[in-house]
Amino acid sequence: MKTNKGVFITFEGCEGCGKTTQIGLLSERLQKANKQILVTREPGGTTVGEMVRNILIGSGDISKMCPETELLLFAACRAQLVREVLIPELKKGKFILCDRFLDSTTVYQGIARQLAQGPVKAINDFAVGNLMPDLTIVLDIPSEESRLRVQRRVNSVPDRIERESIDFYAAVREGYLYLAKELPERLVLIDGSKDVNEVSQAVWEAVETRFFK
Amino acid sequence: MKTNKGVFITFEGCEGCGKTTQIGLLSERLQKANKQILVTREPGGTTVGEMVRNILIGSGDISKMCPETELLLFAACRAQLVREVLIPELKKGKFILCDRFLDSTTVYQGIARQLAQGPVKAINDFAVGNLMPDLTIVLDIPSEESRLRVQRRVNSVPDRIERESIDFYAAVREGYLYLAKELPERLVLIDGSKDVNEVSQAVWEAVETRFFK
Repeated sequence: MKTNKGVFITFEGCEGCGKTTQIGLLSERLQKANKQILVTREPGGTTVGEMVRNILIGSGDISKMCPETELLLFAACRAQLVREVLIPELKKGKFILCDRFLDSTTVYQGIARQLAQGPVKAINDFAVGNLMPDLTIVLDIPSEESRLRVQRRVNSVPDRIERESIDFYAAVREGYLYLAKELPERLVLIDGSKDVNEVSQAVWEAVETRFFK
Repeated sequence: MKTNKGVFITFEGCEGCGKTTQIGLLSERLQKANKQILVTREPGGTTVGEMVRNILIGSGDISKMCPETELLLFAACRAQLVREVLIPELKKGKFILCDRFLDSTTVYQGIARQLAQGPVKAINDFAVGNLMPDLTIVLDIPSEESRLRVQRRVNSVPDRIERESIDFYAAVREGYLYLAKELPERLVLIDGSKDVNEVSQAVWEAVETRFFK
């Protein structure tokens, strides 16, 4: 159900797949096209959400956090972001670029951590209300490459999810490939292992086709 | 479904209904009866849960928190408490006295804030897994009395929920009365406006009847 005048684009993919870079490049292109843009991220993007983000990927000892708790905390961030930021800003006609959204929960907590799909979907639906992305860009890279890119990050201590095993990385990748196949209307799969400008061009073409033609 | 050897008792009711006092008095009685006791609370009771508690009823500016976010944060605390503390301690045979549990979500977020009952139940079920209280003591006091008791608390700044309107207090009370009527097997309604020793005696009788006879 379309409840807004703006355009809501989410970016998904494994750690290190290039989401941040590509969001920056798409944002530049949209600014040149005279669009009003809002860039945000999950978990976070609101006062409450950033507090929850600190729990999820902060420095505190949360080694005992169970998958159910993790899922509910991500959903709490999302519920707040949707109602406090996304819906009002879309009503103003903005282009919103969001780093992760509900597909991350489906893939990370649902598929990779193997929580039951029914409750995961019920909680996702509750969190987002009626708001679904107009387009979701999935940047796909091999899971080995994902892990290497995370390890190479300068000045950055890997967070809890980034420290997961290679099997977890592989399950996440498979999860995204599965979702892209299941939901081809909304998800566009782009090869993120190519040169950054080639990837950027592919992202732009996906956006242009849908919202500028 | 009974998955443990211990006994799990929850205390519910409006703010200021006397839960803390009565938990303390029941704990004393159980210690005299040579039981191993664990007293805990919601939200909180785990490292992650106490971090979330700080968001929910801490001093930060969360005036914009929406009911959906609130519900999901409470559920996250509960999911963690169940798996990290309640299930392992019940397996050891303990008596657990918990200040609030899933009925608080049903009443505060479901009934008083009028979120849809279906998703509230789905999220509650997901958070608790199979663990339900063996007994729930509901301390009932008039909503005006509840509000007065909160205002009278010494050295205590009312938290976000405590500052709610009298209509909200009344809706919470009605919610508990409704639940106690719907689930008479598990919930025992006790008049919390009586003398503290009378209330304590009524609580003890409810516990004794179920677990000591």
